[in-house]
Amino acid sequence: MARNLLVILAICYIQLGLSCASGCNIFDQKAINYGCEFSLKNYCESWRMNVELHNIRDFDVVPEECVEYMGKYMTSMQYKVDSERTIDECRVYVSTSCAFKKDGADAWIFDVDDTLLSTVPYYRKNGFGGVKLNLTSMEEWMKKGQAMALEHSLMFFNELKGLGVKIILISSRRESLRSATVDNLVSAGFYGWKTLILRGAEDEKKEIDSFKADVRKQLMSSGYRIWGILGDQWSSIQGPPTAQRAFKLPNPLYYVA
Amino acid sequence: MARNLLVILAICYIQLGLSCASGCNIFDQKAINYGCEFSLKNYCESWRMNVELHNIRDFDVVPEECVEYMGKYMTSMQYKVDSERTIDECRVYVSTSCAFKKDGADAWIFDVDDTLLSTVPYYRKNGFGGVKLNLTSMEEWMKKGQAMALEHSLMFFNELKGLGVKIILISSRRESLRSATVDNLVSAGFYGWKTLILRGAEDEKKEIDSFKADVRKQLMSSGYRIWGILGDQWSSIQGPPTAQRAFKLPNPLYYVA
Repeated sequence: MARNLLVILAICYIQLGLSCASGCNIFDQKAINYGCEFSLKNYCESWRMNVELHNIRDFDVVPEECVEYMGKYMTSMQYKVDSERTIDECRVYVSTSCAFKKDGADAWIFDVDDTLLSTVPYYRKNGFGGVKLNLTSMEEWMKKGQAMALEHSLMFFNELKGLGVKIILISSRRESLRSATVDNLVSAGFYGWKTLILRGAEDEKKEIDSFKADVRKQLMSSGYRIWGILGDQWSSIQGPPTAQRAFKLPNPLYYVA
Repeated sequence: MARNLLVILAICYIQLGLSCASGCNIFDQKAINYGCEFSLKNYCESWRMNVELHNIRDFDVVPEECVEYMGKYMTSMQYKVDSERTIDECRVYVSTSCAFKKDGADAWIFDVDDTLLSTVPYYRKNGFGGVKLNLTSMEEWMKKGQAMALEHSLMFFNELKGLGVKIILISSRRESLRSATVDNLVSAGFYGWKTLILRGAEDEKKEIDSFKADVRKQLMSSGYRIWGILGDQWSSIQGPPTAQRAFKLPNPLYYVA
């Protein structure tokens, strides 16, 4: 048994050495700072965390060396659990802090892509964030209307409907995609919203954050009480004006300014 | 060899079974949703991520079942790398987007605890976020003035000083800790700041976010251009008013409202 244990230890040691060496080669300066403990996974996780902290902004692509990691994360249990936790926090907020008046003016805003419908299948076939977005190819995919629901978001969407809250969808998708978007939402299980606001020709001149803030301003001045926003981009939830509370789903694949 | 391989596989299988069973026992509903793949690590990572996304707020303690995980994270390479990445993004911002006028009015705001000085050694001895904060015991520890510098923050602090940027420290520590705080900062390598603002008797009536926002308002009206804030709490960086850019370091150990 002692000899076999030695063999196992030797295999472990070689594996450890290989993974370590790969980390050291890629990040010479980091390797100097930290010694050989520093790994590609550390690097990619720190990139993802700093995207979610909104410290990293305006990125066009996921760093090349992290594309595989990001693909794994976006198709992992962890991404699902992270997203479900966000929805759970929405629920806690609704049940503890929202005194809905049920007069038709209580409202909640949702993003569409990667909040209600998943674009992960598109990105899976298109470089998982490592390739600059080709809008034409993305819109062609959207026109097919085959995006799947994010299950936890669908459940929460239905819960809000059940509470009589008006559901407002605000998306950076263009008006030309309206019919495909409506079809896709309905076939994925989303129906009964109050209004679906897409980007018209005039809005295309604005940054997405300004477009969405302007829409919120209009909604508020027309009397809506916006209790919450659920989105996957900081540009969907930051004000002014904003909602009473805003919730951000994880999304390290792309950045919408 | 074949027999030994079988023994190894059997051990692996038992270990896998145990870790899976523990996940299933703790989170029955989650286990039903996800099957036995769902683990305690998934749960605790999603908790940490949603704290950093500012979806989870106002928590008094880290969930009991995640205390061990949080202790591991806060003493891990990953925490260091996550924090260093935040500082790297500050540097990118300073070098690409800050046109300092060097007229004495360029300023940068830092938090103190877990931004410049680490409280991790205190939390390590006091339940790693799993026990409600005992302010008396925390202040006694702070009075000893032995907190260590967060190395990457110290480097960035010195870089800003070298660029002639005025450094303003705003902390939720109370005035009674001024002398201990100054001594600790200096002994950890931080000196040459413009002003250190602590909470006076009047400020103690305010929430921390209001206290910090009021200070920023005063600084701005006295002519400072606040290019950036580096903090570990959302209450340190959210406005209005805020800086041109705000950067948040990771900190899942506690929440300051």
